[in-house]
Amino acid sequence: MKFQRLALIGCGLMGGSFALALREAGLVHTIVGFSASEKTRLRAVELKVIDQACTSLAEAVQDADLVLLAVPVGAMHSSFSAMRDVLQPHTLLMDVGSTKCDVIAAAVATLGDRLSCFVPAHPIAGKEMAGIEHAEASLYQARRTILTPLPKSGIHRLQTAHDVWAAIGCHVSTMTPEAHDATFAAVSHLPHMLAFATVNAITAQPQGAAFLDMAGPGFRDFSRIAASDASVWRDILNANKTEVLTQLALLRTALDQFENALKAGDTAALQQLIQQASAVRSAWTLQAGNACSTASEDN
Amino acid sequence: MKFQRLALIGCGLMGGSFALALREAGLVHTIVGFSASEKTRLRAVELKVIDQACTSLAEAVQDADLVLLAVPVGAMHSSFSAMRDVLQPHTLLMDVGSTKCDVIAAAVATLGDRLSCFVPAHPIAGKEMAGIEHAEASLYQARRTILTPLPKSGIHRLQTAHDVWAAIGCHVSTMTPEAHDATFAAVSHLPHMLAFATVNAITAQPQGAAFLDMAGPGFRDFSRIAASDASVWRDILNANKTEVLTQLALLRTALDQFENALKAGDTAALQQLIQQASAVRSAWTLQAGNACSTASEDN
Repeated sequence: MKFQRLALIGCGLMGGSFALALREAGLVHTIVGFSASEKTRLRAVELKVIDQACTSLAEAVQDADLVLLAVPVGAMHSSFSAMRDVLQPHTLLMDVGSTKCDVIAAAVATLGDRLSCFVPAHPIAGKEMAGIEHAEASLYQARRTILTPLPKSGIHRLQTAHDVWAAIGCHVSTMTPEAHDATFAAVSHLPHMLAFATVNAITAQPQGAAFLDMAGPGFRDFSRIAASDASVWRDILNANKTEVLTQLALLRTALDQFENALKAGDTAALQQLIQQASAVRSAWTLQAGNACSTASEDN
Repeated sequence: MKFQRLALIGCGLMGGSFALALREAGLVHTIVGFSASEKTRLRAVELKVIDQACTSLAEAVQDADLVLLAVPVGAMHSSFSAMRDVLQPHTLLMDVGSTKCDVIAAAVATLGDRLSCFVPAHPIAGKEMAGIEHAEASLYQARRTILTPLPKSGIHRLQTAHDVWAAIGCHVSTMTPEAHDATFAAVSHLPHMLAFATVNAITAQPQGAAFLDMAGPGFRDFSRIAASDASVWRDILNANKTEVLTQLALLRTALDQFENALKAGDTAALQQLIQQASAVRSAWTLQAGNACSTASEDN
C-alpha cells in the first residue's frame, strides 16, 4: 500500500500529524495541502509537514489518491462541495471528525456518485493545543480509530482505510454512526462541556483567579480538556447537540443524587454514590492502555 | 529540627507518605503508628513505613513530639478526643484534612488547653489509589501545603510546621480556614463530585459499559479523580457541603449557558463560552508547575 498523492484539507494538529505519520511510515509519495488561511499552509510547508501548498481545495484534491479532510466538523459540508467535481472515482476520502452523523449527512447531500469514495473516520487522539505547530508523527500511535462505514463504502476501500490507520499505529474499530455519536456524547463531548463550564463557573466569581492559583493536580487533569480549541468544540457540540443534551440531562440526574444526599446529610447514600463511581473508574484504569501516564496525584 | 517520635494516626497513603518523607529527610528518630485496622498497622510495619505499631491512638501519641493525624475528616473529632489526655504541651500536632473549618471546629471542641499544639494543614497532593501500599516518600515533593493557623497557634510552632513541610519539598502557603474551604470547594471538591457523577451517569445507561470501552485519553484524565477513595471523599463533601452546594449552583448556571446556546443553535454564544474557558485554562497551564506530565492527548 503506497499512495501517490495525499491531499490534506485542513493543515492543523490532526491533519498535520496524519501527514507526518504517513510519511514516516513510507506510505506516501507526495503530500499537498490546503488550509483556508494562507499563513497556515505556508507554515505547513515550512515545517515540512506538506510538500506543497495549494491555493484552493479543488487544486489539492485533483489527482490525489488519498484525501484527508481535517477541518472542524462545521466546515465539512462546504469542503465536500468544493471537492465534488475533482474527486477521482478510485480515491479514498476520509475525515477525522469527532461527530459522524452530521458529517455523513453532509457527504450524502453533496458527493453524489463520489459518495463511494468516502470512509468516515474518527481517530481518538489529539491534544488540547491546536495547530500545525503541535503536529507530531506519533499522535496516533497506540490510539483507537473508529470507522463508521456507509452502505456504499465497498469492502475493498474499507479495508484500505483500515490498513492506513493500522499502519500508523492505531487500533481500528467499526461502529454505526449513530452508536458512535451516542458513545462520544457520553465519554467525550459532555466531559468537555463540563470542563468548560467548571472553568467558567470559577472565573465568574470575584475570587476566581485566587481559587485557580491554589488548584492542584486533580484540577489539572480534570480540566485539561477545557483548554481545547473553541472552533473545533463549538462545531462538535453543535453537530451532536441532541445526544449531548441527552447526556447532560442524565448527568443532571446523577448530580441531583449527590445534592440530595448532601442536603439530607445522608452519608451512607453519599458513600454509595462515590463507591460505585470509584469502582467503575478503577476497573476502567486496569483495562489495557487506560492507565494515566501522569504521576496521577490528586487532592 | 529533628523529632524524637512521630506518631502517625492513620497509616494510609497520606500519612504513610509523610512518614517515609520525614525519614528520608532525616527529620525523625522513631515512627510509631496507629490505624483502627490491625491489618493495616501490621502492614505499615512490614513495609517499614513505621517502626512500631500501637494498639491504641493514645499509646501512639503518648511521648510523641510530632503527631500527624491522617484519617478521613469524619474521624477527626473522635481522634482528637482520644489523644486529648496524652498530648504533651510542646508537641506539634498537624492534620492533612482536605477541609479545614470542620476539622478546626472538632479540635476546638475537644482539645482544651492542648489546642495550642495544633497547626491545621492541607497538603495538595495524593493519588486516586488509597492505602499504605501506595505510600511513597516523594508524594509531597514540589506540591503545595496550606496551613490555616489558629489564633492560638504560636509563631514558633507555626514556623516549625512550615519547616517540616518545606523540608519534604512542599511550597507552604497560609490561608484562613474559610478561604481554604471556599477555594477547594471550587477547584477540588466540586470537580471530584462532577467526575463521580459523570461516571455514574454513564454506568446508569444500558450501553454504559460499551461507552466506557471507547473512552479515550480525554476521558481518562477528566475522570481520573473519580477513582478516589469513597470514605475519604464522603467525609470531605459532607464536611464542606455548604461551600460545595454553592459551587454546584454556580456550575449549574454555567451549564445552563451551554444548554441555552445549544438549544438556540447560537453558535457564536457557544464559541464565546468555550473560548473564555479555553483561554483561562491555557493561561493556567503556563503558570509554573501546572503543565500536565501526561502526554496530554484528548479527543
